[in-house]
Amino acid sequence: MRKIHVIGIGAGDPDQLTLQAVKALKSTDVFFLLDKGEVKSDLVQLRRDILDAHLPERSYRLVEARDPERDRAAGGAAYSPAVGDWRSARAGIYERLIADELGEDESGAFLVWGDPALYDSTLGILQEVLERGAVTFSYEVVPGVSSVSALVAKHRTGLNRVAGPVQITTGRRLAEGFPEGVDDVVVMLDAHQAFRKYVDQDIDIYWGAYVGTPDEILVSGPLAQTAERIERLRAEARERKGWIMDTYLLRRRPRE
Amino acid sequence: MRKIHVIGIGAGDPDQLTLQAVKALKSTDVFFLLDKGEVKSDLVQLRRDILDAHLPERSYRLVEARDPERDRAAGGAAYSPAVGDWRSARAGIYERLIADELGEDESGAFLVWGDPALYDSTLGILQEVLERGAVTFSYEVVPGVSSVSALVAKHRTGLNRVAGPVQITTGRRLAEGFPEGVDDVVVMLDAHQAFRKYVDQDIDIYWGAYVGTPDEILVSGPLAQTAERIERLRAEARERKGWIMDTYLLRRRPRE
Repeated sequence: MRKIHVIGIGAGDPDQLTLQAVKALKSTDVFFLLDKGEVKSDLVQLRRDILDAHLPERSYRLVEARDPERDRAAGGAAYSPAVGDWRSARAGIYERLIADELGEDESGAFLVWGDPALYDSTLGILQEVLERGAVTFSYEVVPGVSSVSALVAKHRTGLNRVAGPVQITTGRRLAEGFPEGVDDVVVMLDAHQAFRKYVDQDIDIYWGAYVGTPDEILVSGPLAQTAERIERLRAEARERKGWIMDTYLLRRRPRE
Repeated sequence: MRKIHVIGIGAGDPDQLTLQAVKALKSTDVFFLLDKGEVKSDLVQLRRDILDAHLPERSYRLVEARDPERDRAAGGAAYSPAVGDWRSARAGIYERLIADELGEDESGAFLVWGDPALYDSTLGILQEVLERGAVTFSYEVVPGVSSVSALVAKHRTGLNRVAGPVQITTGRRLAEGFPEGVDDVVVMLDAHQAFRKYVDQDIDIYWGAYVGTPDEILVSGPLAQTAERIERLRAEARERKGWIMDTYLLRRRPRE
């Protein structure tokens, strides 16, 4: 039976790979690298660097495909989606990748940034492929250091305060309102700097972009004093590199 | 200047150590092992096993102390706390450990289960020690695979659903009510099985104890059908081993 590992590779620093992930790499016959479009080709390169570092003998096959997730306009790649529902389209691509490229007794792997459990669709898609029933395989998840853990480690702070809750949410949801009942909120996938809505509140921000890579930028402090600087740094970095991967923790200060 | 690493060592499986953590171990002169009382001596042993595996030449000093956090009745250890505020007591213990046991140019380390950012007090205590001003040092955090990531990896599910939020909270807070505005809730530090309060709701649970260790127990399914079984397994395991470390994800099913 085909076997697939979904491997969390950490949040940018190649040394955030776990020993378990290294072992899984070494047992893999076929790596599926899904490119989300040219702007993120740096991220594909980082995956290649990880493979080169841990599997220098190149004892594996590499299968690349275009992931339609964030690049609807693109096309022409070997596994580009048909019209219709994008999630099904992605399941279709993964199904064909597995059926065509992975032998019956082989082991395949998807390398996922951070931890596969947070805002990553690989697990959901594999489940959908299994439900379609055209191809069978077993799969396992190798957890990774999440971008959330990597962020707060660099800021040398915790996610929660003593016995308090923490919520992890998206920029889109933060733009709708500050979550109820929590004073510590981690925000991911925020393309529109939703934190700006809260600059008049007693909130500290711990922001980071490209955390763990040579391009890392960190800013922390009261939102009122840092929001503009973060916006500027973010825009500059995005312009310079063509893409940005950033995350932040908002921490409401205790009422006096 | 003294240097301290707070190293996340993963959630139970020694292979969840990151390459960065292994490097930090190798650069450490003094390891501080804080025992939370006899019942958790297994956890101290697991830390020793990690040191034996990665530093077989034993090129380090080991300093053990009794951590007062969960063991107020105990006493007599070299670094046991005085009366008064427990947080200050702990800061006092850490301060003396660092001042007495770590040379001016040496590197010390605390090994933290999971990720130091989640429900661990080491970072807060080190910050308090610095604020007291009696001893100076620099410190860095090495993020780890959290027990939360390890749990859902074993269940092969994600923490959040598509673009949805997830909240991480405590059993005590869950007993007060289901968090507002989220349908995916991770519960830690729950000594009283607060999930029982929700057995009549359309909620699935993904529960795990001793995740990543040979004693691992996993149960998942509708709360109504699994709550009793989890309670029983939990009580049996706790009785057998003398301690338990468990976590769970509650996932509210979408309304039809």
